[in-house]
Amino acid sequence: MKVYKIPEATVMRLSIYSRYLHQLMGEGVETISSGEIAHGVGVSSAQVRKDLAYFGEFGTRGVGYKVEELYGHLMKILGLDRNWNIIIIGAGKLGSALALYQGFADRGFNISAILDVDPDRIGNKLGDVKVEKIELLDKRVKESNVSIGVVTVPARVAQDVTDKLVNAGVKAILNFSPRVLRVPNDIILRNVDLSVNLEVLSFNLAFNK
Amino acid sequence: MKVYKIPEATVMRLSIYSRYLHQLMGEGVETISSGEIAHGVGVSSAQVRKDLAYFGEFGTRGVGYKVEELYGHLMKILGLDRNWNIIIIGAGKLGSALALYQGFADRGFNISAILDVDPDRIGNKLGDVKVEKIELLDKRVKESNVSIGVVTVPARVAQDVTDKLVNAGVKAILNFSPRVLRVPNDIILRNVDLSVNLEVLSFNLAFNK
Repeated sequence: MKVYKIPEATVMRLSIYSRYLHQLMGEGVETISSGEIAHGVGVSSAQVRKDLAYFGEFGTRGVGYKVEELYGHLMKILGLDRNWNIIIIGAGKLGSALALYQGFADRGFNISAILDVDPDRIGNKLGDVKVEKIELLDKRVKESNVSIGVVTVPARVAQDVTDKLVNAGVKAILNFSPRVLRVPNDIILRNVDLSVNLEVLSFNLAFNK
Repeated sequence: MKVYKIPEATVMRLSIYSRYLHQLMGEGVETISSGEIAHGVGVSSAQVRKDLAYFGEFGTRGVGYKVEELYGHLMKILGLDRNWNIIIIGAGKLGSALALYQGFADRGFNISAILDVDPDRIGNKLGDVKVEKIELLDKRVKESNVSIGVVTVPARVAQDVTDKLVNAGVKAILNFSPRVLRVPNDIILRNVDLSVNLEVLSFNLAFNK
């Protein structure tokens, strides 16, 4: 199965659908229509059908979708039918919040290590993981087969940390630092700017009144 | 100016374009083409033109855009030609990270207050703001004319906190808790699920190899 040019917004909605289906499974719901999924997550039913259509035919006309089956398909599409090992670089407030975020484990993301340069942070326990010194980056990535590096360090050292992660063998970088990072073409880079979320709100507040 | 049905992805890109233009202004660049903007932020030039076309004609054929003028337009569209007062509920690691996040102030988001229930947190200073008790929610929202409430509390109390924010008069909620929140129709709600960002990476790692 090879998938091309799936809009990122679709991927993000698939993630939301899968959570809703998981909730329904917990409530014992067995089948659901695209309209019910749409209502449950707050999008149009045409959007639900369009998003799912990228990946083939899942439902049965007049019956809808089998909840558990569709959930399984979506988790597979999202790459969540397996676990992913991640490493967090930077044990400041944001890095610590991420290390303690329960939602990651729920979706199969294991935090293999969290590293920092600050002696006051090294040795602290964040959940089940102890903050270790940055010099262990290469070792930890390789021994745990880490795929994803999460960068929460200050801007001035973000590129250096990223280069080290790439050299150690991570395949994807989630960047929370405000620095624009350069990575080789075969590395997937995603920048998270926390203010963008506020700006979607200010846009709506300013114009949709 | 009334704008309808602007895709959220467009709003997020406008935010990115505006940051890039701001950087160019700092470098003394006066005019720029859609192709140069596209290259600078990593999208297609057709995408840049399409995004800007929602809001009218900004550029001049053969000349491109005046950097400072386009920046001003984008900031106005994003509602960032003014300041917004925000309140953070929950002074845990994530709430603290948000309170200390320099990027908010840079874009005109002022943190009016940060509130918590935990006596160990109340009184702590986070940047220029002191953590205060949750009982001040209504007072702080009203006296500072707070528009946006940021919810970083545990799931079990998230709806209660949200109801209090809405009753106090906030117009928009940024929800970092994993709880699905109910708000009145005239309140703008945006849920931030930190794992979705990892799932966009796992999707790409799983399928685009």
